[in-house]
Amino acid sequence: MKSTTDPGPRILTLRQGILKKNDQEAARLRYLFHSAGIFVVNIVSGPGTGKTRFLEATLKRLLENGFPSAAFVGDPETENDAIRLKRSGAPVRQILTRGVCHLEATMISSQLSGWNLEEFKFLFIENVGNLVCTSNYDLGENLRVVMLSVTEGEDKPLKYPGLFNSADISIITKCDLAKACECDLDLAKKNLHSVRPNIQIFETSAKTGFGIDSFIEYLLASRQEFIKNME
Amino acid sequence: MKSTTDPGPRILTLRQGILKKNDQEAARLRYLFHSAGIFVVNIVSGPGTGKTRFLEATLKRLLENGFPSAAFVGDPETENDAIRLKRSGAPVRQILTRGVCHLEATMISSQLSGWNLEEFKFLFIENVGNLVCTSNYDLGENLRVVMLSVTEGEDKPLKYPGLFNSADISIITKCDLAKACECDLDLAKKNLHSVRPNIQIFETSAKTGFGIDSFIEYLLASRQEFIKNME
Repeated sequence: MKSTTDPGPRILTLRQGILKKNDQEAARLRYLFHSAGIFVVNIVSGPGTGKTRFLEATLKRLLENGFPSAAFVGDPETENDAIRLKRSGAPVRQILTRGVCHLEATMISSQLSGWNLEEFKFLFIENVGNLVCTSNYDLGENLRVVMLSVTEGEDKPLKYPGLFNSADISIITKCDLAKACECDLDLAKKNLHSVRPNIQIFETSAKTGFGIDSFIEYLLASRQEFIKNME
Repeated sequence: MKSTTDPGPRILTLRQGILKKNDQEAARLRYLFHSAGIFVVNIVSGPGTGKTRFLEATLKRLLENGFPSAAFVGDPETENDAIRLKRSGAPVRQILTRGVCHLEATMISSQLSGWNLEEFKFLFIENVGNLVCTSNYDLGENLRVVMLSVTEGEDKPLKYPGLFNSADISIITKCDLAKACECDLDLAKKNLHSVRPNIQIFETSAKTGFGIDSFIEYLLASRQEFIKNME
């Protein structure tokens, strides 16, 4: 979003206007999701951290446990991720941003038609792989999850604090590769906590299934809390 | 940069204005670099593909071979990468974008003072880790290199064609991890070529040194061509 080439007051005002409009649409979405009793999770990370594979495992597990869920997946191009996610048995819609580096609330609202939200317990939104631009756009979610892969370096939270600080919980992915990638997991967790003190961290591997149960438990408990607050 | 929330003609005009100003500054930089006989390389990729480690090895090798070079490195926050790159013996300057998702030509020009460009044979610019937003900003470079890591999935060129299509050559990094990450290198190369037909691809590992020589040879030949064209 931001640019430093002579931004000037005109552009700053327009930027604020874009974000304000997004916030208004996100508030409308949040009300809609709340009314339908659907718990919404926005997943953000850099490209290639394993969002799709992790989400496929999560959707499958939730369906098996009697919690049918749906998903959106955003990418600049290709329907590949929606095709992969549909293997879980969940309804999935691809949002093609056509070069835009993040999802916005209007992209979600314009793709909801034909879905009866009350049939779903969870809605997942897999955002575009981007550690900067996704942080400013509220999508009406209940929970923002930031993923950090062991393959991309322990320093990412320090270099991209805006996004990591905007998240509610963090998932470290591809833990089965930690040794091969010489990733220092303690350092990764220390860096996450230095940017976002006390953030809950799930260490996982979608390949081996490690840590998925804990995350599912957390999701179910969070949804229960959400339902309780609705009453 | 782009947003789809009611862009409207005003914002489109401003966007074009930002890019036009950047192009003008990049043209000024290109003239400056050309006059100094310095060959400039802009390295783009997602976060965590190993740009810094690869560049450290490249700078060291060039210095050993009598080609002293300098580097800029852009990050939203932290001086970590400049500290790492300085271990190569090259002069390095960190550009902190403070949340901006890409480097712009003015960020380069404002950091050049005090450097005598004629002392250097190459100038490397390690861009912010971002597969979308870096593609639109010319930095006055001679060569744009896009990196793809074996850890991030073979599909990235297809999902982010804008950036991969803007590059002159491509480097596949962390090839030592290809097997552990179950990366299909042939598929990665096929995807690169489907987005950017005939793009030259270097398979490398900064950890083992694999492929670095070929890249250095390519750099030296490209610089020789550039010098020949100056005469």
